[in-house]
Amino acid sequence: MASILVLNGPNLNLLGTREPGIYGAATLADVEALCLATAQPHGHTVTCLQSNHEGALIDALHEAGRAHRAGELIGVVFNAGGYTHSSVALHDAIKGTGVPVIEVHISNVHAREPFRNHSCLSPAAAGIVVGFGVDGYRLAIEGLVARAKNA
Amino acid sequence: MASILVLNGPNLNLLGTREPGIYGAATLADVEALCLATAQPHGHTVTCLQSNHEGALIDALHEAGRAHRAGELIGVVFNAGGYTHSSVALHDAIKGTGVPVIEVHISNVHAREPFRNHSCLSPAAAGIVVGFGVDGYRLAIEGLVARAKNA
Amino acid sequence: MASILVLNGPNLNLLGTREPGIYGAATLADVEALCLATAQPHGHTVTCLQSNHEGALIDALHEAGRAHRAGELIGVVFNAGGYTHSSVALHDAIKGTGVPVIEVHISNVHAREPFRNHSCLSPAAAGIVVGFGVDGYRLAIEGLVARAKNA
Amino acid sequence: MASILVLNGPNLNLLGTREPGIYGAATLADVEALCLATAQPHGHTVTCLQSNHEGALIDALHEAGRAHRAGELIGVVFNAGGYTHSSVALHDAIKGTGVPVIEVHISNVHAREPFRNHSCLSPAAAGIVVGFGVDGYRLAIEGLVARAKNA
Amino acid sequence: MASILVLNGPNLNLLGTREPGIYGAATLADVEALCLATAQPHGHTVTCLQSNHEGALIDALHEAGRAHRAGELIGVVFNAGGYTHSSVALHDAIKGTGVPVIEVHISNVHAREPFRNHSCLSPAAAGIVVGFGVDGYRLAIEGLVARAKNA
Amino acid sequence: MASILVLNGPNLNLLGTREPGIYGAATLADVEALCLATAQPHGHTVTCLQSNHEGALIDALHEAGRAHRAGELIGVVFNAGGYTHSSVALHDAIKGTGVPVIEVHISNVHAREPFRNHSCLSPAAAGIVVGFGVDGYRLAIEGLVARAKNA
Amino acid sequence: MASILVLNGPNLNLLGTREPGIYGAATLADVEALCLATAQPHGHTVTCLQSNHEGALIDALHEAGRAHRAGELIGVVFNAGGYTHSSVALHDAIKGTGVPVIEVHISNVHAREPFRNHSCLSPAAAGIVVGFGVDGYRLAIEGLVARAKNA
Amino acid sequence: MASILVLNGPNLNLLGTREPGIYGAATLADVEALCLATAQPHGHTVTCLQSNHEGALIDALHEAGRAHRAGELIGVVFNAGGYTHSSVALHDAIKGTGVPVIEVHISNVHAREPFRNHSCLSPAAAGIVVGFGVDGYRLAIEGLVARAKNA
Amino acid sequence: MASILVLNGPNLNLLGTREPGIYGAATLADVEALCLATAQPHGHTVTCLQSNHEGALIDALHEAGRAHRAGELIGVVFNAGGYTHSSVALHDAIKGTGVPVIEVHISNVHAREPFRNHSCLSPAAAGIVVGFGVDGYRLAIEGLVARAKNA
Amino acid sequence: MASILVLNGPNLNLLGTREPGIYGAATLADVEALCLATAQPHGHTVTCLQSNHEGALIDALHEAGRAHRAGELIGVVFNAGGYTHSSVALHDAIKGTGVPVIEVHISNVHAREPFRNHSCLSPAAAGIVVGFGVDGYRLAIEGLVARAKNA
Amino acid sequence: MASILVLNGPNLNLLGTREPGIYGAATLADVEALCLATAQPHGHTVTCLQSNHEGALIDALHEAGRAHRAGELIGVVFNAGGYTHSSVALHDAIKGTGVPVIEVHISNVHAREPFRNHSCLSPAAAGIVVGFGVDGYRLAIEGLVARAKNA
Amino acid sequence: MASILVLNGPNLNLLGTREPGIYGAATLADVEALCLATAQPHGHTVTCLQSNHEGALIDALHEAGRAHRAGELIGVVFNAGGYTHSSVALHDAIKGTGVPVIEVHISNVHAREPFRNHSCLSPAAAGIVVGFGVDGYRLAIEGLVARAKNA
Repeated sequence: MASILVLNGPNLNLLGTREPGIYGAATLADVEALCLATAQPHGHTVTCLQSNHEGALIDALHEAGRAHRAGELIGVVFNAGGYTHSSVALHDAIKGTGVPVIEVHISNVHAREPFRNHSCLSPAAAGIVVGFGVDGYRLAIEGLVARAKNA
Repeated sequence: MASILVLNGPNLNLLGTREPGIYGAATLADVEALCLATAQPHGHTVTCLQSNHEGALIDALHEAGRAHRAGELIGVVFNAGGYTHSSVALHDAIKGTGVPVIEVHISNVHAREPFRNHSCLSPAAAGIVVGFGVDGYRLAIEGLVARAKNA
Repeated sequence: MASILVLNGPNLNLLGTREPGIYGAATLADVEALCLATAQPHGHTVTCLQSNHEGALIDALHEAGRAHRAGELIGVVFNAGGYTHSSVALHDAIKGTGVPVIEVHISNVHAREPFRNHSCLSPAAAGIVVGFGVDGYRLAIEGLVARAKNA
Repeated sequence: MASILVLNGPNLNLLGTREPGIYGAATLADVEALCLATAQPHGHTVTCLQSNHEGALIDALHEAGRAHRAGELIGVVFNAGGYTHSSVALHDAIKGTGVPVIEVHISNVHAREPFRNHSCLSPAAAGIVVGFGVDGYRLAIEGLVARAKNA
Repeated sequence: MASILVLNGPNLNLLGTREPGIYGAATLADVEALCLATAQPHGHTVTCLQSNHEGALIDALHEAGRAHRAGELIGVVFNAGGYTHSSVALHDAIKGTGVPVIEVHISNVHAREPFRNHSCLSPAAAGIVVGFGVDGYRLAIEGLVARAKNA
Repeated sequence: MASILVLNGPNLNLLGTREPGIYGAATLADVEALCLATAQPHGHTVTCLQSNHEGALIDALHEAGRAHRAGELIGVVFNAGGYTHSSVALHDAIKGTGVPVIEVHISNVHAREPFRNHSCLSPAAAGIVVGFGVDGYRLAIEGLVARAKNA
Repeated sequence: MASILVLNGPNLNLLGTREPGIYGAATLADVEALCLATAQPHGHTVTCLQSNHEGALIDALHEAGRAHRAGELIGVVFNAGGYTHSSVALHDAIKGTGVPVIEVHISNVHAREPFRNHSCLSPAAAGIVVGFGVDGYRLAIEGLVARAKNA
Repeated sequence: MASILVLNGPNLNLLGTREPGIYGAATLADVEALCLATAQPHGHTVTCLQSNHEGALIDALHEAGRAHRAGELIGVVFNAGGYTHSSVALHDAIKGTGVPVIEVHISNVHAREPFRNHSCLSPAAAGIVVGFGVDGYRLAIEGLVARAKNA
Repeated sequence: MASILVLNGPNLNLLGTREPGIYGAATLADVEALCLATAQPHGHTVTCLQSNHEGALIDALHEAGRAHRAGELIGVVFNAGGYTHSSVALHDAIKGTGVPVIEVHISNVHAREPFRNHSCLSPAAAGIVVGFGVDGYRLAIEGLVARAKNA
Repeated sequence: MASILVLNGPNLNLLGTREPGIYGAATLADVEALCLATAQPHGHTVTCLQSNHEGALIDALHEAGRAHRAGELIGVVFNAGGYTHSSVALHDAIKGTGVPVIEVHISNVHAREPFRNHSCLSPAAAGIVVGFGVDGYRLAIEGLVARAKNA
Repeated sequence: MASILVLNGPNLNLLGTREPGIYGAATLADVEALCLATAQPHGHTVTCLQSNHEGALIDALHEAGRAHRAGELIGVVFNAGGYTHSSVALHDAIKGTGVPVIEVHISNVHAREPFRNHSCLSPAAAGIVVGFGVDGYRLAIEGLVARAKNA
Repeated sequence: MASILVLNGPNLNLLGTREPGIYGAATLADVEALCLATAQPHGHTVTCLQSNHEGALIDALHEAGRAHRAGELIGVVFNAGGYTHSSVALHDAIKGTGVPVIEVHISNVHAREPFRNHSCLSPAAAGIVVGFGVDGYRLAIEGLVARAKNA
């Protein structure tokens, strides 16, 4: 049975206490539980990883790429936090591994500061979900599962 | 029972024949059927409207705003096509009516020409779904329904 | 007796309910009544038109141009709403007809989002009134009437 | 016998009275007669349409696309007026229908205001004719006819 | 009885001889007489000040702020001339005193050199009147008086 | 009998072998023969010149200017190749001699790299023909001949 | 004993009443008292000057330069207010006199409008203190005193 | 007793040998000793951390946020080195934890290369000290201590 | 006999001590003596004025304009110092008075910081002399005298 | 005997499988073997390090700086992958250690996406080799060895 | 006796007939005679060269550099025409030869099209004279002669 | 036996005397000798050409293209000097001939003025070598030879 990687980047371990007016009251544990609950009815398991280290996120994408080529993983749901707006290295990791990545943002980044309007990851993403709060993770998994069925 | 408006803008009536390498083989009728099939299990009905006229889209958003305030409509799934990138008037129509609008794009607009990277609508949107092909309409309706339940 | 055209563009039919913190509580009917009340003591009549369709606004400017050349109309008071910021076609309609147009904005567009700072119409306008709330329509008519007297 | 669509956008109905120092003294009827006179010796008929409504121009391009695929139309000569500089939707209509479109501008748009220097349509055009006055329509038809012969 | 300050910035003492094709034939004395004639029927008196010194204009706004807080002044009609386009200090003076300021420009600054298109003052202004020639001062006073009545 | 100068700039001597997917299979000799065949029925002769040297192109325009003033030349059909995008000196040569110049580009420069979107020559051109392949030279001569008749 | 000049620019005389949510409740007299209280334990005296006139601030810097060269002054604590963002002349005055200048801003200018993000003075400053409220003046004097000891 | 975190980012471990003409001769140990010596008289202890890893800096800010909420830490003195100019993730860590952060730069970054003129951290900082050499750390601690007293 | 105004702006009173590597060793008195020595053989007298106040420079240009219209002054040699790069008001003063102004810069402003590359005055100047050191004043007077003879 | 550090950044561990149309079929092991084979005939040994962590790359440059100052290392051949385009910290590490660094890119970054056109490292590099595929590593070592001989 | 090179670039051979409203009625022969008449009283001879070829201008600067090093030439008066705005190669030729070059423009390039506002040569020039008509050549020679005397 | 063309552009004939702090002490003859010495052990001969004329460089590339297609030439080592930063025509010549071109720069152009940061040639180059001094020519030939072997 193929699994799904839910990958969260910098500061997402703070969910629940981090600027709740913007990011809501759900914790990272809540998000990960929601992802599991969404994936299970489709027969998928979920691995969750959060790191504040850009390099650790790249490493995780590389391992995901290996698992994807081995048929063990259908793809990644990825919220890269602040690295979204500056990281060519993460863009390259997605392109270089070929693993399908759904980009998620909890808040509507287009309604905030101008420096949040540009994503370095989007051109490499297989799908993008923005502004639904933590429910965006559920939609991303639904989209990823459907994508894998049609592939 | 509240209903949902699925609003499609310029050139989306061409779906199926329009650059299928980018937009896929599904027709607008397929999209609208998918939306209905997604909404019905949640007890929602769907009204579909497509127009190439920016003014007609604004008119439709105004009527949606009236219905929303009257408790008849939970929101709008909106693919504004090429008007996405130039229309302040559509932005204002969303803001001015207060109706929740989920912005959808079939293709990954961030992986195409630079003029498709900016959306005038996004800052006013309640959620954004990009790059999932026509499956994005399904995700948008799922997101809209969940949003209405939590509101 | 020459008359005046009061032309309102997209979303101005929502006045009164549209973001009242920005646009105030007056309705479009209130605005049109104010315009009439301002014009009448000067011996002018007022025709009012609102449309969300850019093409309909161009058509109206063309008819105004014809009436102006026929000596039936002294000019236009025009709030182009969101088209202000994107429409070269409306700019061309003003220049092409030669009818004097007073540009009006209810809110102070220069104190809002950056995309509202530029007006495509201003270089073609005979006068510009910004930020007085709906009282700006009254000032625009006063300015237009004085302009006609001096011409 | 295949026909040609001559499509004129906003304000081109004003030709003859509109800023004649820039656009010349010929009327839209003169332009359309010139197009007919150019096409006939090549065995082509001409349909002429002018609209100030962006949506109507998109609709016309869609119908032209259908006729082109049906072998009824060799292409479109299109002067989009002010929409040239802002309309992604018209760009998409040309790309989406696949109909050959020759872009025409009466004046030398590159010798005027900076906002006239960029055309949203040009990347989608099959040919571009600028600055010849109304004689540009004749050249556009000549070019379109030759293109159809070689296709 | 509350009074009005009419404040004119650099080079406006040259009115009448300064590029009359742009600024017209009226002198500064004419402008000030027009302001008085406009204010008097509303029961207002007018103080007029012109200076080429940015600091003197700031000083005048400070005094106006004091008078406004003391209920002696309903606001300022201000043409800042060339300082309009560069002075953050004048912007701050308006914001810092809280006195209502109507920004006036005699010519249509949006139809001239690009460096005249941006006003540092507009985001702080209570209203803006542009391009009516010296009649703009009359409209500004009318707008200021109406604003004071409604406050 | 007045003649026409067909002036080709850098790399156009490579036509036929140069990136034929972009520039087509016709050689420079083919282009020059086409120009002659187009001009002759109108009673015009054609002089052809190609150079990779910017200075030689300027020299040729100067000689064309002399001939034009002498009534020996109706104008120039000019494809400046890569100098199109950088040469103020060629712009000045056109303006300085006053000879009518029709700017031609074989490919659709607006559908290629961004640095090909701007032409230094266009503001000085009497007409512009883009994207018709080598048939653009024929259209340019037709346009130039008509222009001379109407002058 | 060398002294210190505390130089305040436009609108800083309004401290205490000027937008207290941004600038706080302390008055300019409070600021100057704080500066004196900070300097005295180090054996320094303080001269305070506030002006809304850019020229007066330049004059003061020139006098400070003379005193610095004469060994009478260790440097200047300077809050240039709105001139910070536009004045090359003040930059030149600092560079031209060679007097050490510590730039102070009460509010965090980088968290406000974009036009406050750039300082013309910073490249010429000996140190910069931003966002500590009026306590920044104390820190600036401490930094200036330490700098003089080490020089 | 509340403590202070002194956090240094990439390359600051090189202090003393790193471009001493720009950064001076003091070593990181000197800086940390200076911080301790400054904090102790105020009854504060200091924890020092330097890392070249962006993720490690984010982790440290998270721990500081926890300690701050627990009343164990009054704030952070932070020199983010080169990450200052590119890291949205560090900006988010400051905003997300709510811990007061004083941004420090040893050199005058505004007098160096243009890419050092913009700080991603400044909009989130509680205070900024630039260009005093290592003495800036002392001023930052003084400012942080005063801030904590007034809070 | 008509005279010449030599007008120097901010910081030019520091000549001789101000960054002599850039501005040289000559004092303002030396400059003024050089101007007199240059003008006298042509039968002209020279008035010299230096001010650090932008308003005083505007006042001086106004007086110069009056004298020019009265036939008392042939023009102004003007080094506006730092105001060169920011002052629209000085531009307007030159345009508004119509007095011929020769702009002078001692250093080569185009070989220094980017903010010195743009002059607000140049579009209004009758001639510009840059980079000759103080000898530029002599050339400016020579050019102004020749200009007056030919007028 | 001095040695050489071959430092590879993010995603270069994927060489051989990563977008081979762009990066070729050679693996990182192949690259490292090529480097060794190039260096050995010159009497140099090679240490190879690859990391996806920016901080680890900075740490490695610091150690290289130490070894260089100790005469143990002639320099670094560095392909920073995606960090090339965003990392000021790596720029600072090169400048701060003073170790000679040859920047290598396998693909021609100037023929790809615009965000790959700018390198933060280049201004600090001792030499740059771009677009030769993995052979660029060989050239870089040859260049580094020659540089060390001449130093 | 050292001589002076007067070097004129593209289109300056057209002087007298080239846009006389901008460039005046004097011919290139007049300019060269004026230069000779200016230089002779100072004991200098003048060599004049005009070319439309950028390479020929570079060649001439190289020869001038050789003569300057040989003490045969005091410098160059250079009007580079349209190459002024695009030629890094001419900039490099000036820098590379070290010959003093006075840049001359007949018209006020700062009052014309924006593309004439930037000079690639100015940062390398020993002096710049703009907008005096052909009299600027005289001033340039005067300035060059004085510069040589002081060197 | 295939040969190599070493092509040098404007000002490179000055090598040895041209700004030796930037370009070093080697002359062009030294460079050409180095190229020959590098090529010979690989069995290649070298033709060297230097010109200050852009057109002559294009002509040389055309001849190189012919020789390459004839199997007589493996490629070109090209230092285009100042034309690097402005010449689309040279870019087109490389693309149009298809001959492999290695771009060389002696100095590190990315550590100098901003206008040297962009190369028009790089997107068309087969390899790029920057900043190694004249040794870059040796590396370029080594890279070109290896490239030819692998082709």
